[in-house]
Amino acid sequence: MTTYPLKIWSNVKYLPVARELLRAVAAEHTVIFSQGPGDAEANAQLVSADIAFGQPPTEPVRQSATLRWVQLDSAGYDRFDTPAARADLQAHGTVVTNSSSVYDEPCAQHALALLLAHARKLPASFANQATTHGWPMLPIRAESALLCEQTVLLLGFGAIARRLAELLAPLRMKVVAVRRHKTGAEPIPIISEAELADYLPQADHVINILPASPDTQHYVNAVRLAAMKPGAAFYNIGRGVTVDQDALLDALQSGHLAAAYLDVTDPEPLPPDHPLWTAPNCVITPHTAGGHIGEFPRLVRLFLENLRRFTAGEELLGRVV
Amino acid sequence: MTTYPLKIWSNVKYLPVARELLRAVAAEHTVIFSQGPGDAEANAQLVSADIAFGQPPTEPVRQSATLRWVQLDSAGYDRFDTPAARADLQAHGTVVTNSSSVYDEPCAQHALALLLAHARKLPASFANQATTHGWPMLPIRAESALLCEQTVLLLGFGAIARRLAELLAPLRMKVVAVRRHKTGAEPIPIISEAELADYLPQADHVINILPASPDTQHYVNAVRLAAMKPGAAFYNIGRGVTVDQDALLDALQSGHLAAAYLDVTDPEPLPPDHPLWTAPNCVITPHTAGGHIGEFPRLVRLFLENLRRFTAGEELLGRVV
Repeated sequence: MTTYPLKIWSNVKYLPVARELLRAVAAEHTVIFSQGPGDAEANAQLVSADIAFGQPPTEPVRQSATLRWVQLDSAGYDRFDTPAARADLQAHGTVVTNSSSVYDEPCAQHALALLLAHARKLPASFANQATTHGWPMLPIRAESALLCEQTVLLLGFGAIARRLAELLAPLRMKVVAVRRHKTGAEPIPIISEAELADYLPQADHVINILPASPDTQHYVNAVRLAAMKPGAAFYNIGRGVTVDQDALLDALQSGHLAAAYLDVTDPEPLPPDHPLWTAPNCVITPHTAGGHIGEFPRLVRLFLENLRRFTAGEELLGRVV
Repeated sequence: MTTYPLKIWSNVKYLPVARELLRAVAAEHTVIFSQGPGDAEANAQLVSADIAFGQPPTEPVRQSATLRWVQLDSAGYDRFDTPAARADLQAHGTVVTNSSSVYDEPCAQHALALLLAHARKLPASFANQATTHGWPMLPIRAESALLCEQTVLLLGFGAIARRLAELLAPLRMKVVAVRRHKTGAEPIPIISEAELADYLPQADHVINILPASPDTQHYVNAVRLAAMKPGAAFYNIGRGVTVDQDALLDALQSGHLAAAYLDVTDPEPLPPDHPLWTAPNCVITPHTAGGHIGEFPRLVRLFLENLRRFTAGEELLGRVV
């Protein structure tokens, strides 16, 4: 049974926005804002809170006997996705929801932007403009590709991949995804991990959208990179640790891959002297795929909608644990 | 009545590809390849040819009493679109077809690539990678935009715009186009030139796809640029002469426009010291929008299909005059 007022703990980084939007809630419930890891007073209250919103530290969440719901303001939730963490959360009756519905659209648009940037050879035009102001019309035209009929292989099929498949539909590409647990309701052909070796050599574009987890560590390794079609392009909008970056560097330096487009790296920030910054045809966007004007209000509104559902006893949006 | 063999004149620039594909035709007809403006012998034959394929010089085409069909290997056909040229061609019974069906897809994909590059702030990420190798995650995320719900205004509504509207459909944007002669069969709302002043201030993205003609010279002028929404982005994948580039430069330097993406300029090549190369947030691709792997074979195949139609007395594809 829900007892009022609820004690809501939050360490979201966009406090002014969140405060304003949570004002109505604050009248009904107790909202405790932590200013960060150094805010000992606020942080001490996490263990006895009912609800946490933001990125609460892992251990207090796993230990708390009172927390009934954690709303993460990210799509990633790998900290709570280990068997041990799941066991703790289940034992205490703590539910975890993520904010992937806020990030699927910008991430899918970002992936499409990178795919089209590659097809239209935008990096070559940018490089020309940054240097000689030449007019390399013929060489760039000769290397530009029509996406129609080309093959895209998606590593992972969650909310971002589903949206990306919608955005790709009018381009008439062949789109296939690897998914560990196929539901049968997917709108595109799904292959198993065992079939990956057969499909990697066929894809013109391999788009990695995998989350971080013990199972996905260096999922894109030297063997899988070598299996990709010569001249293919690789994209990572998942997590940096899912790629063996040394092997990726080799695949770029040897020319086996035509290009790599990385929105995530390991580590982040990528050190300024890291060789990926200057690897051939490697384009890096600094973890910007999910960002967008209105991101923070959307995160708070998703929390508020879930809070309404929580107090009404309805199913929460984006439950992941 | 068609008399055989037909005399086919061509000055296409991709002679090896064209020769191979035209080999079957050459057995049936007489094919004369001009090596360029200096090839006096071949060029002299244009006036007495039946068919021309490529970019035949304007005056001989207008004067020829024998030419019955000119297949241009471009989408643009402004040289033959003046009242005087049309009168000459009509008097001689010369039909002109263009190759816009070869270029609508790559041009539409290019426009989408530029739109998404702007939304996802790819130029900022490229600039970071070309210079400091920093990690400007927060500022770039804060400026990235979701395209959904934003408004696109297309200047011109031909084959490229029609295809672009299809590609934009899943992004759920508001798409409107200006078209001089509305047919009523367009799949998106069409406005007249008189309504343009009302719509320019509403558009987040203004995409110019206008051809060159006396009517479109500096169509995008200081008045229309000033009418655009502050912070809007302007794109030109039509022709350079349709834009008053001095006025565009002003609009970029004042910050009135957030950015410009130009695939075409006036002149081309744009001189290396032209101020647009270094104008704030001006991105230039060197007339690469229509280029793609397979472009030349596709142009020849379109010509061959039209040649089949011509000899069979069927309607030609892409008739423009």
